Amino acid sequence: MAVIYRVNMTDLSVRSEAPGPGYLETGGRGLTSALIAAEVRPTCHPLSPENKLVIAPGVLTGTGAPCSGRLSVGAKSPLTGTIKESNSGGMGAIAMATLGIRAIILEGKPADRGLYRLIVNTEGIQIEPADELAGLGNYETVGRQYEEFGDKVSCLSIGQAGEMGAAAASIAVTDVEGRPTRHCGRGGLGAVMGSKGVKVIVIDPRGGHRPKPADVEAFKRGAQKFQEILKGHPLTGEGLPTYGTNALANVINQAGAYPTRNFSQGQFEGTEAISGEHQHDVILERGGEIAHACHRGCTIKCSRIYVDENGQYVTKGPEYETIWAHGADCGIDDLDAIARMDRLDDDFGLDTIETGATIGVAMEAGIIPFGDAEGAIGLLEEVGRGTPLGRLVASGAEVLGKAYGVSRIPTVKGQSMPAYDPRAVQGIGVTYATSTMGADHTAGYSIAANVLGVGGTVDPLKPEGQVELSRNLQIATASIDASGLCLFVAFAVLDKPEAMDAICDMFSGLLGREFTADDYLALGKATLAREREFNRAAGFTAADDRLPDFFKTEKLAPHGATFTVSDEELDTVYNFVGE
Amino acid sequence: MAVIYRVNMTDLSVRSEAPGPGYLETGGRGLTSALIAAEVRPTCHPLSPENKLVIAPGVLTGTGAPCSGRLSVGAKSPLTGTIKESNSGGMGAIAMATLGIRAIILEGKPADRGLYRLIVNTEGIQIEPADELAGLGNYETVGRQYEEFGDKVSCLSIGQAGEMGAAAASIAVTDVEGRPTRHCGRGGLGAVMGSKGVKVIVIDPRGGHRPKPADVEAFKRGAQKFQEILKGHPLTGEGLPTYGTNALANVINQAGAYPTRNFSQGQFEGTEAISGEHQHDVILERGGEIAHACHRGCTIKCSRIYVDENGQYVTKGPEYETIWAHGADCGIDDLDAIARMDRLDDDFGLDTIETGATIGVAMEAGIIPFGDAEGAIGLLEEVGRGTPLGRLVASGAEVLGKAYGVSRIPTVKGQSMPAYDPRAVQGIGVTYATSTMGADHTAGYSIAANVLGVGGTVDPLKPEGQVELSRNLQIATASIDASGLCLFVAFAVLDKPEAMDAICDMFSGLLGREFTADDYLALGKATLAREREFNRAAGFTAADDRLPDFFKTEKLAPHGATFTVSDEELDTVYNFVGE
Repeated sequence: MAVIYRVNMTDLSVRSEAPGPGYLETGGRGLTSALIAAEVRPTCHPLSPENKLVIAPGVLTGTGAPCSGRLSVGAKSPLTGTIKESNSGGMGAIAMATLGIRAIILEGKPADRGLYRLIVNTEGIQIEPADELAGLGNYETVGRQYEEFGDKVSCLSIGQAGEMGAAAASIAVTDVEGRPTRHCGRGGLGAVMGSKGVKVIVIDPRGGHRPKPADVEAFKRGAQKFQEILKGHPLTGEGLPTYGTNALANVINQAGAYPTRNFSQGQFEGTEAISGEHQHDVILERGGEIAHACHRGCTIKCSRIYVDENGQYVTKGPEYETIWAHGADCGIDDLDAIARMDRLDDDFGLDTIETGATIGVAMEAGIIPFGDAEGAIGLLEEVGRGTPLGRLVASGAEVLGKAYGVSRIPTVKGQSMPAYDPRAVQGIGVTYATSTMGADHTAGYSIAANVLGVGGTVDPLKPEGQVELSRNLQIATASIDASGLCLFVAFAVLDKPEAMDAICDMFSGLLGREFTADDYLALGKATLAREREFNRAAGFTAADDRLPDFFKTEKLAPHGATFTVSDEELDTVYNFVGE
Repeated sequence: MAVIYRVNMTDLSVRSEAPGPGYLETGGRGLTSALIAAEVRPTCHPLSPENKLVIAPGVLTGTGAPCSGRLSVGAKSPLTGTIKESNSGGMGAIAMATLGIRAIILEGKPADRGLYRLIVNTEGIQIEPADELAGLGNYETVGRQYEEFGDKVSCLSIGQAGEMGAAAASIAVTDVEGRPTRHCGRGGLGAVMGSKGVKVIVIDPRGGHRPKPADVEAFKRGAQKFQEILKGHPLTGEGLPTYGTNALANVINQAGAYPTRNFSQGQFEGTEAISGEHQHDVILERGGEIAHACHRGCTIKCSRIYVDENGQYVTKGPEYETIWAHGADCGIDDLDAIARMDRLDDDFGLDTIETGATIGVAMEAGIIPFGDAEGAIGLLEEVGRGTPLGRLVASGAEVLGKAYGVSRIPTVKGQSMPAYDPRAVQGIGVTYATSTMGADHTAGYSIAANVLGVGGTVDPLKPEGQVELSRNLQIATASIDASGLCLFVAFAVLDKPEAMDAICDMFSGLLGREFTADDYLALGKATLAREREFNRAAGFTAADDRLPDFFKTEKLAPHGATFTVSDEELDTVYNFVGE
């Protein structure tokens, strides 16, 4: 009863099909990348009718496996031109899985340039005109759906940025409270959804059934063991619930790897004021919430609810990457201002990393000075109004930098780097350079071994060992991204060998056949190989697997470091693909 | 006494050196590309201190050879990321040659972000602060220099666009009347000059001496023969002087290859009103000037002086490409409006092709409607004011298209296509795709054989023969661009074998050694090989030698044609390089 839906937005028709045998034992990024690689011409324009947007829950999603609610969205990216998968928490993936949906594929482009909404339920998918939603933010857009459909549905939606076709546009996924706070942020996939004329997808799981494992007992054993391991690990059991992802701010700043003022320094003097510890205190003082789960079945609960001085809801988190992007990278140390920007990003439907980095470049261009929090909020508000400056802010650091003649642009394949300077953490530089997705920390989170001492220790300032570290993490991540498990389980997997057994037990129980660690890693390897082949056919070569020149020529304080992993070494990251 | 000057804009110092032996027998593009390839790191950011701007007259410039006044400017391009040479008429090249200068190389970048002017004369080069010129257009900038230095000097300058670092920024070269009407337009080299902090270069040739041929009699024989051939050819002797470059409008429209409304159609219903024939009549009626030479020693005289209804000077030309870009490509059939836009382009320092194509994309984005001449002028005026929208207009079609989510972007390697649709003239599509410079008609003007019946005939709608045609023209063009001869001499060279002899006689006479047609073509081949190697090292591959997808998928009326030269054929264009 597993089903793939094809929604043709050119003729507004829907077709359902049974997943082919190759697609049955993968999911999430494994499925989105397999479908994009098989069906999208690599040289097409990302906003043309030929591109497709594929939405898929992970293999384990909906089964009750702990922390398995991730949703993958894939397409050819308008930001990078590469194949792209961007994933998110929230309740959308579980809702899809409950309906037995392995993937929804949006194809074509409406001739009338109209806006539509999709209603997904046990009947299938209905396409309805939704021009009345034009120009609305995500909060208002999903708010109207909850009024109409009640609180059991989940929504995927785009804000103004996605409607504009902006390259930093995200796809919002509603959380447990029905707020559009979780985002497939990276790579501008919201613009692809916008180009298809789809404003919102309402997923109504009522009447559906969660996937039933073939061997229920075996599955349960694995799930229980996995939960215990997650609870027992200091990061997933304690650090992340208590301080959230932003526990990293002080750690990375200490390491001299906290990119400050558009990657011109490695430490920010205002870190304390925007740290996870301070954020924790502010939230508790004001009556917000820590240890908040972004989807049911999450045991890590790294999210939080940020409230203002009157205890009124402002936004979720904000997360480490967001606080860095709108904070240190812009020289801003005002947590309340950062929370307002996070809220605006979520509402307009913008990747917080790309948007913060773009504002950093705007500051370097002199549009506003570094540290100007109100000016930064003003720039963001331009996005909502669709002004030319707003279009630039929503188009990413590379486009804004080009329009303003800035030469220090911290991007790879057109995508802005996240919150770790690759000069002070060389392993993450290898991931930024070689990931199939452009600069992306989640693709191979070397910070674990480079800084956190998780899964071993590799000196962050030396080139030695970084390629192997990044390669292994990129493979493991692609496997996790197929499973539907949250990437944060990796901390436990890296430290506890029995966590891998527990994952394999859950896969074995679900699929009803023996599933080994090798099978698991094969999922990731196959995904990376497909993605890389797509990119090759789209025109990407080794020359694109490089950091911008300035990381090799400008020394970063306090270590005086430059990026020293050689091009030859970078070119060996994918040697397992057999190119 | 030949000299190369290095102007270091970081420490504001000037060094002179004798050209190395490899540089003595080349010039123009041959010299700019050799120097860039030898001295600039291919991966550097085009606006970083590591890029260099090289300015060089051709080998024959200043000798009195007919039509030999072309000036080449080279750098790594902010628009394309490739090596770039952009060349121009005007008096600047002759002034440099008269001072014995083979090249001026601008290096570094001022730490104070100040603006400077360079005074070039028999004493050398002086660097002077010129902050008072900040924000001025080219007309006012050079006007002030002529007031100060009198009418014997020539100026190279940038307008507001170059100061902004805009990727469509040109470098203006003054004409015989001291107006900034001739431009090194393509590739954003004005932004590189701006990044070096150089607003204007005043070249004072007084006291200098024209290069003296080693064998004066031989040189004169060649020059005289060459002049006779140019006068006797129907295009260079009659068509171009009478109707200017815009004689092409009706011809290309007839061929169904006149890109209309952002390359969505191949014929423009308003062509008659913007044709060269109509332009000729308007100019003569109003007391303007046809058969105007852009530099002394030009016998073709394709330029004209365009005046308003009161007979007051508006601008030169405008040229065919400009009238197309601001006209048919935007659905505009108002010659006076187009002339005003040409004037604004020249004043702000913008490539008219890139700017017109960008406005066409802005129209496709719905910023203003197609055909809205006053709206287009309004968009251009935004550039002068430096608004965000103006920055976008000055950044080229690809950046504006990305910011507005447009999928039909007629560029190759980031540079907008000129006035010939490659679906209806397949040979020019080969040149656009494979040129080392991005989409560029002058790099290998297949229109000659595809449409004009010059140098043979190759069916424009079929793929057969196009690669060979483009290859031969790309080689011949690179040779011409080294010589300092105007590309229009190629019409005569293609039709009259004795024209090649005349060129070789001039080279032989100048250099004092036998110079054959093979030597001449070797100049072009060596240049292309260097350029291609630079691009390879900068990360360009065969995948970049392609037209945008829509030329293969959208049929062009009236022929219903798509671009059908195969990728495999495109990859053979440079087989002479021995890759």
